[in-house]
Amino acid sequence: MDIIWDPLEIERKSMEIIEPYLVSHNLNPGQKAVIKRIIHTSGDPDLIHDVRFHPRAVEAGISALRKGAAVFTDVNMLKAGINTKMVQGYGGEVRCFIADPEVAVAAKAMGITRAAAGFRMHSAELDHSVVVIGNAPTALFEVMDLINKNMIAPALLVGTPVGFVGAAESKELLLQLDGVPFITLLGTRGGSSIAASIINALLYYQGDK
Amino acid sequence: MDIIWDPLEIERKSMEIIEPYLVSHNLNPGQKAVIKRIIHTSGDPDLIHDVRFHPRAVEAGISALRKGAAVFTDVNMLKAGINTKMVQGYGGEVRCFIADPEVAVAAKAMGITRAAAGFRMHSAELDHSVVVIGNAPTALFEVMDLINKNMIAPALLVGTPVGFVGAAESKELLLQLDGVPFITLLGTRGGSSIAASIINALLYYQGDK
Repeated sequence: MDIIWDPLEIERKSMEIIEPYLVSHNLNPGQKAVIKRIIHTSGDPDLIHDVRFHPRAVEAGISALRKGAAVFTDVNMLKAGINTKMVQGYGGEVRCFIADPEVAVAAKAMGITRAAAGFRMHSAELDHSVVVIGNAPTALFEVMDLINKNMIAPALLVGTPVGFVGAAESKELLLQLDGVPFITLLGTRGGSSIAASIINALLYYQGDK
Repeated sequence: MDIIWDPLEIERKSMEIIEPYLVSHNLNPGQKAVIKRIIHTSGDPDLIHDVRFHPRAVEAGISALRKGAAVFTDVNMLKAGINTKMVQGYGGEVRCFIADPEVAVAAKAMGITRAAAGFRMHSAELDHSVVVIGNAPTALFEVMDLINKNMIAPALLVGTPVGFVGAAESKELLLQLDGVPFITLLGTRGGSSIAASIINALLYYQGDK
């Protein structure tokens, strides 16, 4: 078997194989970079059909990250998948509140998930940030509610919650969000790996090439 | 919209929705538990067709974890997705070598990925362990090579590397592995979320119910 061992060659070859899946889609270079990384991360070219971008999303995300925006995630696995060093290099940080003891207490008291409670309790910090929700539909519902109430204004909202209970519904609602640019993957599919790949694509983006 | 906010109710409802996808498949209770969690994690019922189990895999994995076996992962995101507290509760630990400085040096010197180099350098620790490779085909090729050379004997090898360069090939080879039980997802799909869900299913397994 002809195994490729060199990591740079693997990445180059992988992106070369993914490229043809994108040709018939009408994408700008930034959107293309995001979708390429989603397919690279999932091994599933079929996901291209379900990705949706607010027209200003890629631009807004890249701009915010380069200005040192904080990145807030719903779960720690997603946090671990983001290139933290690059975020920090721009002056930002990656944070997740789900394991904080006071969030657990509040979640239990409010009868909601810890992921949703984390964003509710830290809403004052979310302005101009990049919010990334890869798992919990409840967290996405909560953040959209805070936006619709004019309580927070993140620079970008990435929402790819996964599963059969509320995920697809939360993402349909995200399509109608007013005022905050978003990136999403419709349907039941999603998760930490895909959400992280979107942020990493924005971090790695180097223009039209 | 009828949003469900209670985490236990979300999990219960999710598993109830997934159940019908499994009925026509000939699975024992342990295999069923693993596949349910893969679908729960990915939102993709179609993955059921590509999961493959060595006949003794689930039993061997559960038994090893309960005896306090160490869990070794190829990347840190996968490590973050595993229920570390449960592993530690049994006396085990979850480890990943990819970010170790000496692994980076060795990988560069050997012209291989850091994921593969991590397993090569720590091969002496892999006996009776649970090895989980969610991303790097090169790491899976390396671990299979060590097994085939009789240098290591993990209790279980979970291999769900992802992508278009070597992933599918590495998993086809895993099907022919002799002596070490395995769980895999054939084809290009895979990744950290799916690999973590397999280990968590083994940790959470409570028998036939």
